[in-house]
Amino acid sequence: MAESTPSLGVAVIGYAFMGKAHSHAWRNVGAFFDTPAIEQKVLVGRDGARAAAAAKRYGWQESATDWRKIIERDDVHIIDVCAPGVMHAEIAIAALAAGKHVIVEKPMATSVEDAERMQEAFAAASARGQHAIVNFNYRRVPAVALAKKLIEDGRIGELRHVRASYLQDWLTDPNTPMSWRLRKDEAGSGALGDLGSHLVDLVTHLTAESITDLSGGLRTFITERPTGDSGDGSIKGSGGSGPLETVTVDDSAWAHGTLSGGGLLQLEVSRFALGRKNEMTIALYGERGSLLFNLENLNEVWFFDGQNDSQEQGFRRILVTESDHPYVGKWWPDGHIIGWEHAFVHQFAEFLTSIADGTPSSPSFAEGLRVQQVLQSIEDSAAADSRTVTVPA
Amino acid sequence: MAESTPSLGVAVIGYAFMGKAHSHAWRNVGAFFDTPAIEQKVLVGRDGARAAAAAKRYGWQESATDWRKIIERDDVHIIDVCAPGVMHAEIAIAALAAGKHVIVEKPMATSVEDAERMQEAFAAASARGQHAIVNFNYRRVPAVALAKKLIEDGRIGELRHVRASYLQDWLTDPNTPMSWRLRKDEAGSGALGDLGSHLVDLVTHLTAESITDLSGGLRTFITERPTGDSGDGSIKGSGGSGPLETVTVDDSAWAHGTLSGGGLLQLEVSRFALGRKNEMTIALYGERGSLLFNLENLNEVWFFDGQNDSQEQGFRRILVTESDHPYVGKWWPDGHIIGWEHAFVHQFAEFLTSIADGTPSSPSFAEGLRVQQVLQSIEDSAAADSRTVTVPA
Amino acid sequence: MAESTPSLGVAVIGYAFMGKAHSHAWRNVGAFFDTPAIEQKVLVGRDGARAAAAAKRYGWQESATDWRKIIERDDVHIIDVCAPGVMHAEIAIAALAAGKHVIVEKPMATSVEDAERMQEAFAAASARGQHAIVNFNYRRVPAVALAKKLIEDGRIGELRHVRASYLQDWLTDPNTPMSWRLRKDEAGSGALGDLGSHLVDLVTHLTAESITDLSGGLRTFITERPTGDSGDGSIKGSGGSGPLETVTVDDSAWAHGTLSGGGLLQLEVSRFALGRKNEMTIALYGERGSLLFNLENLNEVWFFDGQNDSQEQGFRRILVTESDHPYVGKWWPDGHIIGWEHAFVHQFAEFLTSIADGTPSSPSFAEGLRVQQVLQSIEDSAAADSRTVTVPA
Amino acid sequence: MAESTPSLGVAVIGYAFMGKAHSHAWRNVGAFFDTPAIEQKVLVGRDGARAAAAAKRYGWQESATDWRKIIERDDVHIIDVCAPGVMHAEIAIAALAAGKHVIVEKPMATSVEDAERMQEAFAAASARGQHAIVNFNYRRVPAVALAKKLIEDGRIGELRHVRASYLQDWLTDPNTPMSWRLRKDEAGSGALGDLGSHLVDLVTHLTAESITDLSGGLRTFITERPTGDSGDGSIKGSGGSGPLETVTVDDSAWAHGTLSGGGLLQLEVSRFALGRKNEMTIALYGERGSLLFNLENLNEVWFFDGQNDSQEQGFRRILVTESDHPYVGKWWPDGHIIGWEHAFVHQFAEFLTSIADGTPSSPSFAEGLRVQQVLQSIEDSAAADSRTVTVPA
Repeated sequence: MAESTPSLGVAVIGYAFMGKAHSHAWRNVGAFFDTPAIEQKVLVGRDGARAAAAAKRYGWQESATDWRKIIERDDVHIIDVCAPGVMHAEIAIAALAAGKHVIVEKPMATSVEDAERMQEAFAAASARGQHAIVNFNYRRVPAVALAKKLIEDGRIGELRHVRASYLQDWLTDPNTPMSWRLRKDEAGSGALGDLGSHLVDLVTHLTAESITDLSGGLRTFITERPTGDSGDGSIKGSGGSGPLETVTVDDSAWAHGTLSGGGLLQLEVSRFALGRKNEMTIALYGERGSLLFNLENLNEVWFFDGQNDSQEQGFRRILVTESDHPYVGKWWPDGHIIGWEHAFVHQFAEFLTSIADGTPSSPSFAEGLRVQQVLQSIEDSAAADSRTVTVPA
Repeated sequence: MAESTPSLGVAVIGYAFMGKAHSHAWRNVGAFFDTPAIEQKVLVGRDGARAAAAAKRYGWQESATDWRKIIERDDVHIIDVCAPGVMHAEIAIAALAAGKHVIVEKPMATSVEDAERMQEAFAAASARGQHAIVNFNYRRVPAVALAKKLIEDGRIGELRHVRASYLQDWLTDPNTPMSWRLRKDEAGSGALGDLGSHLVDLVTHLTAESITDLSGGLRTFITERPTGDSGDGSIKGSGGSGPLETVTVDDSAWAHGTLSGGGLLQLEVSRFALGRKNEMTIALYGERGSLLFNLENLNEVWFFDGQNDSQEQGFRRILVTESDHPYVGKWWPDGHIIGWEHAFVHQFAEFLTSIADGTPSSPSFAEGLRVQQVLQSIEDSAAADSRTVTVPA
Repeated sequence: MAESTPSLGVAVIGYAFMGKAHSHAWRNVGAFFDTPAIEQKVLVGRDGARAAAAAKRYGWQESATDWRKIIERDDVHIIDVCAPGVMHAEIAIAALAAGKHVIVEKPMATSVEDAERMQEAFAAASARGQHAIVNFNYRRVPAVALAKKLIEDGRIGELRHVRASYLQDWLTDPNTPMSWRLRKDEAGSGALGDLGSHLVDLVTHLTAESITDLSGGLRTFITERPTGDSGDGSIKGSGGSGPLETVTVDDSAWAHGTLSGGGLLQLEVSRFALGRKNEMTIALYGERGSLLFNLENLNEVWFFDGQNDSQEQGFRRILVTESDHPYVGKWWPDGHIIGWEHAFVHQFAEFLTSIADGTPSSPSFAEGLRVQQVLQSIEDSAAADSRTVTVPA
Repeated sequence: MAESTPSLGVAVIGYAFMGKAHSHAWRNVGAFFDTPAIEQKVLVGRDGARAAAAAKRYGWQESATDWRKIIERDDVHIIDVCAPGVMHAEIAIAALAAGKHVIVEKPMATSVEDAERMQEAFAAASARGQHAIVNFNYRRVPAVALAKKLIEDGRIGELRHVRASYLQDWLTDPNTPMSWRLRKDEAGSGALGDLGSHLVDLVTHLTAESITDLSGGLRTFITERPTGDSGDGSIKGSGGSGPLETVTVDDSAWAHGTLSGGGLLQLEVSRFALGRKNEMTIALYGERGSLLFNLENLNEVWFFDGQNDSQEQGFRRILVTESDHPYVGKWWPDGHIIGWEHAFVHQFAEFLTSIADGTPSSPSFAEGLRVQQVLQSIEDSAAADSRTVTVPA
């Protein structure tokens, strides 16, 4: 990049878990990637004192409480939305209207309708040279990027089975208190949107295929939970002791579907798989090769090459920590593993590069909308005794 | 056992893969288990020369070609049916009528109707003191038996999720020739019956719960295959070059169901999962603990004890090779792993013990019938766009 | 083989753990391998009643108490020595003198001198067409045989490091009672001979190199143990409560040496590695590739192919359960794992084949002697403050 | 901390691999840990232009080329030495004399003598309230910290065996060019100091025992290498084509020693273990429990609890990603894995806290000196045919 390029001003809206993770990525992206320079302008949050403290801690020049004012500032070029899902559409549409580039956390929205409105807003903004992405961060894990490359290179061939799961266990205890994540009006859905959106995006991204039809279901195991303190900063919260409140989202969701290339897809997500803290797995079985990925060991991908001599075939554990692997060479010498948050740094590096180059940014709003449609189809099938439904094209 | 107990005469019907495996178990059971003595009387097969050669090799006193004559012999007390599935009902019912104890390989039959007739025949025979089992051998893998014990001891608690899969890859190549296993009239079904029956039995055995309803599907990826030599003794056969024949069974099947205790069940079986030679996995996630088993490492079970101190929780790899583990202490000193076929030896030891003790034998024909009903329900749901169906009680 | 070939009569001397394992192999070898027919003639043991019971249980025609008479019988052609190590030389030499083929369990002897005498006796017998082996059974594990093939094919290249360990934990408890295995005059040595002999044989067999010099050490952690009942059939025995007796063998041994090809060798064996029941590992790092084997997962070998494209390199888990893998295709269809005792069957099949073909049998007495020399060198170095010693050529 | 506490000014000396890693830690420590505020004052490097570019990229206020001037600055309170090992003593001693707190990268020095001088300088400075550490970063990996806690809690008991290895493969190719790391006068030693120092520190830290005597050895496999470009920023460099230069350090080193508590220690390090990019393993086998750690999966520790019921014993994979595990709760919600460089952040957080609290900092210079003495003992034993030597107390 030319030294004279002016820096891009960034504002992050939200200072909780995602705000912290995004702040980390903005603070570090320039130290590792040769992307356009950015400035950490403003951290926005509802609670002024908390926003100010977070801004100081996370390296922001200022804090603010009203996002509407921030999207009007000339020195802010990127609006990065880490607010709750129900607010994504309003903020993103306004920011796009104000001429800003936009990042929204996943899932893109809490309804297909909102996602459609966002996509329309982006279509207009795109014509004006603006960029927008939905932050499906797992695409940017080096092992996932290597898997994508192997698929593109034809090493897997026609897909027969894709099996994906995202399992957590933080709701197993019936005393885990009620929180916004368990209310449909705030979160949109439960495990389906939170975890299922990752799986749907990863599957369609990796395979470059769409999901054409599916049968699915939803389950809420514990239908009432105590209200109580979940303000300890953790997702789980400490044991609630207040009056019971009805859980209005799913604890688990599943689908079995068909890929546009003819393969079969199986998905399952849950917050009730005791012992699984954050285990996302994806297995792809093709005609020529197979691939396995597990988020618990995110520096690895396992590759079965069906073209090896038959005596020597086996799943190969590729440690994706070498300089010729995607992204990872930017960090440390060969053999040093990276962590979960590094994918955010990669995502932002890609986003900044696409802005600088004027190339399309991804994961696009169109892709985010597509994920939303699949999630809606799972809800539709669940409401129809799991009967197979066609996913809108 | 008293020295004076007369030996039980055994006849095996079938000398192919299963006949070989059963012969091995009969030849060795007495060397390791203190069960009633048996004698390897007759090996029965359609081809007289082959039957004679196999009988000699596998330690049988005689061979024969007509099973009807064998079931009438006074010196034969146990009829062990390794013939193709479509013959199970006829032979088993005749043998029971002739007063014999009966073992049938899994799956019990190729239709619910046949299984019901077998169960009726057994009900009458049982009143006369006869015994019968369906050989769901994986129940007798020591690691599975230990898992069963942990569940019975309450270590897993109320089940939330059971996830099971049985994946093979021997049909991935479109040139793999047609065989009896791919014809509905001979095999009944494809992966569903062959592999799915194992999963359904294991799930219901381990959980002591039934499957109350389910949504399911079937898929045949390659609908026509060349005819050709599959007479090399392998399941797969060598590349076929004859005219194409229509495959009339499923290559893959799946179901998502509900357990009687309220948990969710997910099943998938396939012969198209490249790289998986014989991988059967089962994961049980409960309120107090979780368990994992994988047939590729059949000497292990993984146990997550949710009652451990939170800092110390983790999946524990229990090597089920110690003298205080089920079955395995009968073989070798601690730490010596056993193989796939040992489960047959254990099964027959259990069967002989139950005959000697006059206690019920298992896996019972009633359990086998129940498996058949679940498989039928999967076919029913598949035929109704995966709509959820109730499994007959 | 021709039908007219007379059967080879076999006598096994010893009915404990090894006698049981060898009996199993003789009982089953003909059912799986096309080797010369054998007959299970006699099982020999010191205690007549026990020998008779074991003979009946394990399929032997007769039992006997005096091995000297048995080696004179005309209908016995193979003497299989499972007696304690200190008796190996006497029995083997006498049996060879009597014109018999001989198998001795490992380790070959309890001293280099005995091994040399055995080797001399064999040299004379070999000229008369007799065969003899030391039963280093792990050579015949299919995964080890595949590793050997990959090395012979040049896939590993010049070796840099060989790291091997054999870890058990049955002596960790100070109350584990005294037994013959802990007395130097009966066992020769402790972990060194029992476990170290396996490692030394495997390393030299796999690499086709010798160990030229080494530094080593020995350790006895618990120097006195209670006497008590170890007659429960297990190696470990139950807790002893008798008077203390001095342990006269090593609990652990180690060596670091040089291979004739210039690579480095590291060995460690122990009976005090809590949690390791029977874990033998060997890792070979070469200039072109690397290999890993672990007895706890004996159906697998891991292969790192340094010639793969750099992005795709990784350790590949080869499930050695396919029909084109060594030995395993004789058992079951693809994908069925085998156990520890199967290697004995393979060993005997190889032995019978070499007798029939008149080709050299292996592991030879010369190889067994060589192992003994390495073990002695470790003792020598240990006695000299671990100073490096040259292993006699 | 009180808001009024003045920030601690930091200067890092060195901008290569370690300078980049330390810069990252200084840039991020305050965002995750409640430690005294710091300011990234100066990045020092020999090449002014490169230092300036690195300073800008890594978030430093200034750059400089002369460390002597920097250690005199009043606004710099911490001197963090990432320069080559031979410079550690001079810089650290001068910085301590100038009243600064000091961090030196590992290994502490390239000779025992230098380490002793550093330790003396620190003794004087400590009396003045200064702090100093050697950056053995692996102590601060959460899984290692949890292992330390389990040992301190008596869960492992008296140690029998500690087995540690650190294996890399970047020198396997004979064409890998010469570099400063392969010259004794610049690097002090090869794999021994670079990798062995980590193992020695970890073993003594985890066990809280010292190494009393040892036998050891060194090996250089490739004694001459081409000179050539290693300026590509990687450790390995690209293929050299210049004239051959003699390698003056070890490619591999090993030791077998005794711990002060009576246990046995086995160490091996290498840069020639093909397929191992950065695999550091440590296994501790005790009387009550055992522990395993592998740097390739640094978010895990495996614990075998010998106090579990015998049927249920097994190595337990503890995912050290929960809020009640050491350090990791400061980063993200439960279940999110961290990477290699996070340990540096933890180390600096510990260092800053000990400065603020006036408690001793660790890993101390005394501990670093002790590591140096063990490395020297390995060299001494290697020079004496691996004869056992006593490590100076």
